This record gives sequence, structure tokens and C-alpha cells, in this order.
Amino acid sequence: MKENLKKYLVELIGAFFLVLTIASTALLGSEGVIAPLAIASALMVMVYAGGHISGGHYNPAVSIAAAIRGALPWKQFVPYAIAQILGGVIAVLLFAVMAKGSINGPEPSNFNLKGLLLAEFLFTFALCYVVLQTATTKNTQGNSYYGLAIGFTVLVGAFAVGGSLCAGAFNPAVAVAVGMLGIIPTAIVVWTIAANLLGGICAAIAFKMTYTEE
Amino acid sequence: MKENLKKYLVELIGAFFLVLTIASTALLGSEGVIAPLAIASALMVMVYAGGHISGGHYNPAVSIAAAIRGALPWKQFVPYAIAQILGGVIAVLLFAVMAKGSINGPEPSNFNLKGLLLAEFLFTFALCYVVLQTATTKNTQGNSYYGLAIGFTVLVGAFAVGGSLCAGAFNPAVAVAVGMLGIIPTAIVVWTIAANLLGGICAAIAFKMTYTEE
Amino acid sequence: MKENLKKYLVELIGAFFLVLTIASTALLGSEGVIAPLAIASALMVMVYAGGHISGGHYNPAVSIAAAIRGALPWKQFVPYAIAQILGGVIAVLLFAVMAKGSINGPEPSNFNLKGLLLAEFLFTFALCYVVLQTATTKNTQGNSYYGLAIGFTVLVGAFAVGGSLCAGAFNPAVAVAVGMLGIIPTAIVVWTIAANLLGGICAAIAFKMTYTEE
Amino acid sequence: MKENLKKYLVELIGAFFLVLTIASTALLGSEGVIAPLAIASALMVMVYAGGHISGGHYNPAVSIAAAIRGALPWKQFVPYAIAQILGGVIAVLLFAVMAKGSINGPEPSNFNLKGLLLAEFLFTFALCYVVLQTATTKNTQGNSYYGLAIGFTVLVGAFAVGGSLCAGAFNPAVAVAVGMLGIIPTAIVVWTIAANLLGGICAAIAFKMTYTEE
Repeated sequence: MKENLKKYLVELIGAFFLVLTIASTALLGSEGVIAPLAIASALMVMVYAGGHISGGHYNPAVSIAAAIRGALPWKQFVPYAIAQILGGVIAVLLFAVMAKGSINGPEPSNFNLKGLLLAEFLFTFALCYVVLQTATTKNTQGNSYYGLAIGFTVLVGAFAVGGSLCAGAFNPAVAVAVGMLGIIPTAIVVWTIAANLLGGICAAIAFKMTYTEE
Repeated sequence: MKENLKKYLVELIGAFFLVLTIASTALLGSEGVIAPLAIASALMVMVYAGGHISGGHYNPAVSIAAAIRGALPWKQFVPYAIAQILGGVIAVLLFAVMAKGSINGPEPSNFNLKGLLLAEFLFTFALCYVVLQTATTKNTQGNSYYGLAIGFTVLVGAFAVGGSLCAGAFNPAVAVAVGMLGIIPTAIVVWTIAANLLGGICAAIAFKMTYTEE
Repeated sequence: MKENLKKYLVELIGAFFLVLTIASTALLGSEGVIAPLAIASALMVMVYAGGHISGGHYNPAVSIAAAIRGALPWKQFVPYAIAQILGGVIAVLLFAVMAKGSINGPEPSNFNLKGLLLAEFLFTFALCYVVLQTATTKNTQGNSYYGLAIGFTVLVGAFAVGGSLCAGAFNPAVAVAVGMLGIIPTAIVVWTIAANLLGGICAAIAFKMTYTEE
Repeated sequence: MKENLKKYLVELIGAFFLVLTIASTALLGSEGVIAPLAIASALMVMVYAGGHISGGHYNPAVSIAAAIRGALPWKQFVPYAIAQILGGVIAVLLFAVMAKGSINGPEPSNFNLKGLLLAEFLFTFALCYVVLQTATTKNTQGNSYYGLAIGFTVLVGAFAVGGSLCAGAFNPAVAVAVGMLGIIPTAIVVWTIAANLLGGICAAIAFKMTYTEE
């Protein structure tokens, strides 16, 4: 397969399992501590599985940060984002088939807009900052911790603000998927995506302000 | 000892402790979050302990994926599978001796067949895909994360669909053992094994579609 | 940006997210197991993100230990501590904006002074000892576990004595922040800081007694 | 300090924090999932902190296994064991000072002898097998996962059989300490130590049967 198509397929597979895990833990009645742990672990394992092929983003906010930082060619940003969103959409559709009859439909959550924007912005910033610092630099090349660091940043955000102040997406592809699942209303999806992308952009700026190639 | 026998012994030891942990956490009254965490950790530590000798499969679905990918000689597939199943069976028998009088016998679970097949297939696919990408490639050789990634893929699957949609085996040797323990009826064991092996086969195909040796 | 300013900015960002996580999990009604897991993970991911730039201290007790050990120039100790405390203060202020209306104000805790001093001293000692042994030596250079070890030392301390015997700060910048949040009274903040710094100093001594460059 | 004394001091410090964590989580009213997670993490962080100096055993069963395998000079076995037990005893004494008035004294547990012996034997075997395979071989030299693997083997054992079938010590130094804390009666301490040492011996044999230097 063409090298770029391989990358898009890896992004699709990773986003698929990330969203499948979100859908399952959110809608099959897991206890409070389980969803963040499962979702963070899903991201971690997929980052480790696909990092050496596509970079293991599974998240348009990460891809925009990587593009600004120079770790992803700009012309691949749109295909990456499409593959990520598509992976999430397929997961939502397949989950509906797989879990038919077992779903405990959630009440759509609503959040204070200011808190939601800040919370999604700040932890998407943290996520993209961690990705750029641990997975795209020469100074840390060959490390084995990048997936752990990236996955567990989502754990931190999900425990800190997810559910209480915002949906805890930190990822536009996830925002679209949880919107489709009826966990948050459409207006919240749009604001979440905006906050996530802004978080990614600011993280790339913070990275450039702090990193020096040795 | 002959090199191949060493590998089979390592596979037997690892599958033994994996199944012993499953039996103990399922039948000695652990809280909901404990069994997946313990089982994923058991797999992780045994992968790290035996990976450098046998590859650390402990799972016929992983072994079939590794054989298709060229990481395990085909003639070793059957001895691997026998060692894995045997390790699990010994664990079940020894557990019965060890825990006599402390067991809280479970009601055998039953699941919707379509959901069960999809859930076991998808997360066995994820597990084997993660194994092949993190533990069998030159591009990621010498990494220290493969056991973490492999173990925690089982955590994700167990949290996402285990117990709600399927037994959460993702492993034919485990399916046999939980059948022996009376956690799932025999028909479910058979369907689970089929879904697991198909997941392993498809993961090997997905691996070949996405990986390029650098 | 000047190299030293980069380091201070990295320390500020890391301490900001550490304290933001503490504030959120302490004041937005998380279950008992969540706060320590989230806080330890926040420290871990920020250590991995910033370790290659500033050392990833986010903690004046760690910085004093690093200075005694010779891993941080003494003239950078004060700027480090200021950046760390400032990051925490900004987090407290921003949290108040972000979470307005969602905060479940805590009863200020009070502790037995002897127990508090010992508990904060011992686990700050453990934290700084782990930092020096895993993140500042030639014998372990290039390892990928230092962030995991450092973050999870805080997990151990928080589970072992945090909340029951002391605030579980193990970090003067955190002590200041939890004082501002009203979780502990001012007198406790002062004693905690003293115990933390003493723990860092003793850890540096213990390090010098045990480490030999190969 | 003389090189050997450094090793003994590191063993004492690590065993001290391991037992301090056990005492605190067992006697200060932690929820069920917390003690195993905290104890496993305490072992993990101390293994990473001291592994490069003393091997990071903190456990006479591990030291006997290491001695049989040739990774510890036999003449150091007794000093290692003394340092480990002494570290635990100091932790128990200091804990009594630190936590005076906060302790929820446990009912001494009692267990079925056959189950206790098997459970302590099997998981001490697993622990020592993991230590030898991940921390003493040339084939895995320089890996970053050994502490994670070793610590989380204790997590597995504690979740699987700790409290239900046995004390979950898997370590004679811990057995002595939990006996002093009144968590288990003296007879159980003695049987636990015997099962632990036998587990270590058998693990060394299993290691020799499975490992080949490349």
C-alpha cells in the first residue's frame, strides 16, 4: 500500500478503538473510575502501536499542533483529520450494532460555556504539549515513555474536568463521536472542537518557545 | 533444555499465571475495577518476563497472528497453543485446590451472540495488532513499552466490553479456562474461540497492510 | 528565548497543570481513588514533557535536593522556586474562574502536628531520593522510567498518608496552592513547607551516601 | 561509604518505604483497591531508585533467588536479608509514632493453611521469576520496564489472593512486619516466610530451565 495510505489507515484504526472504548464505557454502565482509565489506556496502546507509522495522533488537535511544529506535512493534515473522524464515526455505528439492547442511554450533559471552553482548551493544550515534547524531538528520540505520557495526559484531564466542567474530549474527532452518541448536544460539540484546535495551536507555540535542539 | 522446550515452558508458565489471576479475581469476590486491572497486569508482567524467550504470547490468537506475520514458525503454532491451553487448565485445577471453600460460584453469564462475536473479535484484533506492531518489528526493536501496551489492551477490552457484551477473553486459552470455571457455558466458549482466532488472523492482515520495514 | 527562561517557563507550565489537577480533583467531588491517581499522573506526564529541558522538578523541595546534589546550579534555585510557586498560583486563580459555581468547598482539614511533619518529611524524602536516583545519574542515563517512578512516588505518598495524616503535598509549591484553596489552614502550610524542604535536603544526603559513578 | 554498605543502605531504605506503605494503607482505613496499588507502586519506585546500586530486592525471597541464579554473591545474602528486615521493622516502629491515634486496628486475619501456602508460594514464585527474567539477564539489559514488571507482579498477587487466601506478603521481610502490626498471627508469619523462600528457590530453578544467554 502507498506509504501515506498506510498512515491514514493507522490513524483510522486508532481513532476507531479510541471512540469504541469511549462509547462502550460511557453507555454500558461502567463505574466512575473506569471510563477515564480505559480511554487513556486505549489512546496509550494505539499510540504505541501506530506511533512508528503515522505518529499515532488519532486527534486533529494533535495533528494541527504537529503540522505547526513541522512534524507533519501540512498537506497531510486534512487526510489525517478525515481518517480520524471517519474512524470515530465507524466506531459509533458499529457500537450501535454490537451493543443493541445493552445501552443505558445517557442524559445529554450540559455545561457552563466559560468553564467548558477553558477546560477543553487547557487540557488539549497539555495533551498536545506532551505529544510534541515526548514524540517529536531529537533530544528524546527513541524513548519508550511517549505513549504512557500521552495516554495519561488524557487520564488527568478526564479525572480533573471531564464530566464536571466539560465532556472531556480534548479531541475534535472524539467531540464529533460523543455528539453522535447523544452524550453532548451539537452546540457543545462545536465549541469543544474550537477549544481543542485552539489548544493545539497554543501548544505548538509553547513548544517552540521552550524547545532547543541539542 | 532444548531451546523449543524452553519456549513452550515459558508459554505454559505465563498462561498459568494469567488464568490463575482470572480465576482468583472472578471467583473470590473482587470489586468491579479489580479483575481487569489484575488480569491486564498479569499479562503485562508475563510478557515482560518471557518476551525475550518465547515472544510472550500466552494466547493462541496471538500465536496465529505471529505465525501469519512470520514471527513464529508455523510448526511451532500447535505446541504453543497446547502449552498455553495446558497452562490455563493446570491453573484452573490448582485454583480449585487452593481456593476450596472460598469460592463464590458465579452464575454462568449469557450474552447476545452478535454482540459477543463482534466484541471478542474487535478487541482480539486490537490485542494482536498491538502485539505485532510493538513486539515483532525492526522499527521498534529494543523498546521497553511492548508489555505495557499489550497488557493494557486487555484492560481496555475488559473495561469496554468484558462482562457486559462478552466474557472478555480475547484469548482461546482463556476461553477454555473460563468455560471450565463455569463462568460461561460451553457454546459461548466455542463462539469466543472462533471470534478470537478470526481477530488474530485479521490483525495479521492489517499489520501487513500498514507496516513497512525502514 | 534565552535558555534559562525556557527552563523557568517549563517549570511554570508543569506546576500549573499539577496544581490545576489538584484543585479540580479536590474541589469538584471526585471519589477517593481518583485524586491521587490523577495528581500522580499529572506529575508523571509533566516530568516526561519537561525533563529534557528543565529537569522537570515542579517542586522546590526537588530543586533544593538537585542543587545540593549538583544537578541544578544554585543560582537557578530561586528562579525555579518562583516559577513553580507562580505556576501553582496561576492555576488556583484560573481554576476559580473555570469552575465557578461547580466547587464543593472543602472543610479545611487539620492534622496532628507530629504525624503531619513526619508524613510530609518521609514521603518528600522518598520523592527527592527517587528523583535523584532515576533522573540525575550517569549510571541510569537515557532510561525511560524516571517519570513513572517520580509520579508514582507521589501516588504512594498520597495513598499512604495523604488526607489521613497530612495534606499529602510533598511539595512547597503545592502546599502554598492548597493553602490558597482553603484545603488546609495557613499554619499547616508553613509546617508542610518546612518538612518538605528538610525531606529534600536529607534525600540529597542519602543520595550522596549511596551513589557511586560507574 | 564502602560499596557493600551502600547496597545494604539502599535495601534498608527501600524495604522501609515498602513496609511504611503497607502499614499506612492497611491501618489508616483505605478502600479495597488502594492498598495493592500503593504497595505495588512503592515497590516499583524503590526498584527503579535502587536497582542500579543494590539490584533493588527489598525481599529475602528475591535475594535467595538472585543468589541461586548467580546475580548476588552468597556472602551478601545474610546482610541483604538483615537490611531488608531491619528496614521493615524501623518502618513499623516509626509508623506507630507517626500514626498514633489514627490507627484503625485490624482484626488479625486467619487463613486456611493449604490455600495460604499455595497462594504465597505461587505468587512469590511469579515475583522472583519476573525479577530474574527482567532484571538479571544480558538479553534484556538496559530495559526500562523491570521496575514496572516487578512492582505490578505484587499488584497481581495482592488482587488475586491477598486478603482472601493469604496475607499477600510474597516477601519474608513484609511477613515479619505485618506480624508485628498484628495483621496476621505469628504462626501465619512463619508459614508465610517458608512459602516465600520456597517460591524464590523454585523460581531460580525455573529461570535456569528457561533462560539461554544469547
